[in-house]
Amino acid sequence: MKIIIYLYNGITMLDAIGPYEVLRNMTGAELYFVAENAGEVTADSGLIHVNAKYSINDIREADIVIIPGSTVGFLKEMEKQNVRQWIKEVDRHTKWTASVCTGSLLLASAGLLHKRNATSHWKTMNLLRDYGAVPTRERIVEQGKYITAAGVSAGIDMALYLSNKIVGEAETKAIQLIIEYDPKPLFQAGSVLTAGDDTIKTAEKRLAKEAKRELGTMGIIRYSKKFLKMR
Amino acid sequence: MKIIIYLYNGITMLDAIGPYEVLRNMTGAELYFVAENAGEVTADSGLIHVNAKYSINDIREADIVIIPGSTVGFLKEMEKQNVRQWIKEVDRHTKWTASVCTGSLLLASAGLLHKRNATSHWKTMNLLRDYGAVPTRERIVEQGKYITAAGVSAGIDMALYLSNKIVGEAETKAIQLIIEYDPKPLFQAGSVLTAGDDTIKTAEKRLAKEAKRELGTMGIIRYSKKFLKMR
Repeated sequence: MKIIIYLYNGITMLDAIGPYEVLRNMTGAELYFVAENAGEVTADSGLIHVNAKYSINDIREADIVIIPGSTVGFLKEMEKQNVRQWIKEVDRHTKWTASVCTGSLLLASAGLLHKRNATSHWKTMNLLRDYGAVPTRERIVEQGKYITAAGVSAGIDMALYLSNKIVGEAETKAIQLIIEYDPKPLFQAGSVLTAGDDTIKTAEKRLAKEAKRELGTMGIIRYSKKFLKMR
Repeated sequence: MKIIIYLYNGITMLDAIGPYEVLRNMTGAELYFVAENAGEVTADSGLIHVNAKYSINDIREADIVIIPGSTVGFLKEMEKQNVRQWIKEVDRHTKWTASVCTGSLLLASAGLLHKRNATSHWKTMNLLRDYGAVPTRERIVEQGKYITAAGVSAGIDMALYLSNKIVGEAETKAIQLIIEYDPKPLFQAGSVLTAGDDTIKTAEKRLAKEAKRELGTMGIIRYSKKFLKMR
């Protein structure tokens, strides 16, 4: 089972590493980290750098493709015609096409979520509508072969969900145990439905600050006002 | 607040990236990925490569140091006198010294967990005793400034726990919301206490298989029999 995880500058690293850590343990999984160009990719924080072995010219077919999200980096990726084209081409033969966080916006911009329910990071949920998808506030949304997951850490849940479909319950439980995924979140603050207004406002301020910093670096201003106002 | 995350060949990538994704959002956090030598570090899977900007010679002081775990790579790190020495030196000035998964064995081998309660990945829990620590099967174990976390994904919980101590509840809740950490694990299989015997056996077989492969690559045989038998 050939699995592509797409890497790009500005990526939120946990969006990629969560699903990777689950799926690499799946029997028969062959994982490929693919970027527009092979070589170093830098995360949204600017603090961690990973090396993609393959470019989008090297690998054009897979059983599963996963598009991780980013704070604002997805805006730049969405504007790349060759990246959108590659996603469409890979999707043609996949059994599953999946995303984490704002990765769903990249799928949507490639035209793959048209009239489909989809989720994203809570902060960017409404942007999905601009690309023809139907924003759906759930942790995992499955529509045919398209599986989208909510923000950042939701990629772990999504990958276990996918694993369960592919190799079944017994193996997926073992994978869950291997990564000791027995979460004990400190607060009930991980969802906008439970976080409370003060927490949401604080989180929005921080996201806006990071977005501004990154949008400046990336030279994207077209979406910035919209992004900063949105919830 | 200067935070070191230690990288090394054979690392389980989620052990490092989970805490990173939490702590990078903490006000005043300055994160440094440090390895024995600056440059590329390859994960246990052999599939993902990250670049450490700093070597242990570049950075010898921090407020927090976090040692991530690995499938078997920790065995090789434990044998490096310069790495153990560096951990001891950094620890001298930390406010918090923390580990994820088998990272606690590296702390223990540096003599930092002597007679202290500590946790680790469930599979390697009993190895802690060989290095003078007291194996304690909990998700997070706090002993003075020493905080150890259980396997792989427990690093996310540990980092939120640490954040709560440092910047308090309001900010930590916002961080939890930013990474949308509202986990919905598919099964109750993430802990040996709930997983059931079949799941444990399947997980052990897989870990043993991966350990064998890696131990072969790394040329470590001293611990291999013990590791393979252990629970």
